[in-house]
Amino acid sequence: MADFQRVMDHAVAVARKAGEVVREALSDDRKVMTKSSAVDLVTQTDQKVEQLIIQSVKEKFPKHRFIGEESVAAGEACILTDDPTWIIDPIDGTTNFVHAFPFVAISIGFSINKQVEVGVIYSCLEDKMFTARRGKGAFCNGEPLQVSDQTDIHQAIICTEFGSNRDPEVVDKMFCSLRNILSLPVQGVRGAGTAAINMCLVASGCVEAYYEIGVHVWDFAAGSLMVTEAGGVLMDVDGGELDLMSRRIIAANSRTIAERLVKEIAPFRLPRDDAPPQKQ
Amino acid sequence: MADFQRVMDHAVAVARKAGEVVREALSDDRKVMTKSSAVDLVTQTDQKVEQLIIQSVKEKFPKHRFIGEESVAAGEACILTDDPTWIIDPIDGTTNFVHAFPFVAISIGFSINKQVEVGVIYSCLEDKMFTARRGKGAFCNGEPLQVSDQTDIHQAIICTEFGSNRDPEVVDKMFCSLRNILSLPVQGVRGAGTAAINMCLVASGCVEAYYEIGVHVWDFAAGSLMVTEAGGVLMDVDGGELDLMSRRIIAANSRTIAERLVKEIAPFRLPRDDAPPQKQ
Repeated sequence: MADFQRVMDHAVAVARKAGEVVREALSDDRKVMTKSSAVDLVTQTDQKVEQLIIQSVKEKFPKHRFIGEESVAAGEACILTDDPTWIIDPIDGTTNFVHAFPFVAISIGFSINKQVEVGVIYSCLEDKMFTARRGKGAFCNGEPLQVSDQTDIHQAIICTEFGSNRDPEVVDKMFCSLRNILSLPVQGVRGAGTAAINMCLVASGCVEAYYEIGVHVWDFAAGSLMVTEAGGVLMDVDGGELDLMSRRIIAANSRTIAERLVKEIAPFRLPRDDAPPQKQ
Repeated sequence: MADFQRVMDHAVAVARKAGEVVREALSDDRKVMTKSSAVDLVTQTDQKVEQLIIQSVKEKFPKHRFIGEESVAAGEACILTDDPTWIIDPIDGTTNFVHAFPFVAISIGFSINKQVEVGVIYSCLEDKMFTARRGKGAFCNGEPLQVSDQTDIHQAIICTEFGSNRDPEVVDKMFCSLRNILSLPVQGVRGAGTAAINMCLVASGCVEAYYEIGVHVWDFAAGSLMVTEAGGVLMDVDGGELDLMSRRIIAANSRTIAERLVKEIAPFRLPRDDAPPQKQ
């Protein structure tokens, strides 16, 4: 049995250190490479920060496993087992980072038995440290978080993202969902440019829900716990149970709002995070 | 001839005071009323802050005129003359304010001979004071601002908003423009939920451009000077010269990016800000 408080303390310490690296890099190194598409970006800082986190955790918890965005991009398997696993996005919001847009997060989730037990999200340009432990609540800089109590969709702000997939069929579906939701009408649609911070906005009560198809487990593992520990709910976009590897999520303040969104979202499937690697 | 530095100093002082009122109100008074539609919101704080600004300016500059969002909503004419005129949005981002979403701005522009000479935007939850004087540069908390030097649209982030108009024909046009731009592709589309802050993001170099149809002169008078003083350009969405009362704007880091957007935006017209009032 892992000592979750030790894990949390280490995650917070290493996220803060990673945040310093990101802030320093903002002033110089923002050389950009692309991954799956022309708008799927990665920088040397993403890779450097992931290595920093993994090395630091390995020293303290040598038997733990990792799922890291950049390690997976480099060819490592992305399989969630029952073992203690650190699920890491070194820079959630790389496009924001490249542009110095003010929402950039380090996201660290920790799971055992495929259940997220610890979530740490450091919004490093705002200097906000979000933390959650299962059953122990969610916090921002030590202050407890609570989702909004608004259950009328017409009074809601909804967060989503366009992501980096520009396949016309995917864009069709995204626009269809967005238009349905906007026309309900809702009060507003926003997108911070990072899944992790969108979920912190749900947990903080600033927006009622966030949904997206195309995210990865490292984008939302930590955020998923932040939302439930702040009193919110998680759901697949088709109304079923959230599947961490399915790349689809609704995170909402309430079941009422989540189920209302299910009716408006045009769902589609993408290759799962734990699918066998495809030949290039 | 007005002393623009006196105007600027007073605008900064009163914006800061207004920001305090907004921050205090966040913890208690966020009673919401609606204006033109179910998603066009106004609160008592909007009205209180506008009165605070107008009273304070009247004491110091008794002959100056005003165009204020809430005064216009209350039936006052919205005519831009050659006289010294304070153009005020007491809370740009009222929906954000209602939800405590972190972008809320006080926007104060000052014009003579229909030309904006001073612009002050206070992003009061971030505590960022943006200031500009024509010919004297743009600043954030005293640090000079400079637009991005990126002229490749494929490397750009573009800001826009869905606004509060849910007329299906308007929504059609908005979605058409947005889809064209997203599919270029650009690196990202964002929206802070306030025109003023979107324009500060352009001036700060965090995004390459902002466009919108449906904004009002009080939303972008101050921001328009912020962008040009940081080295950017303004344009109508059809590529013509910006008309402050036309409710349409492109604010970009460069003519190249602005003209590229013109090709993708499906333009439409709304009643001008200075149109005679319509019978209800």
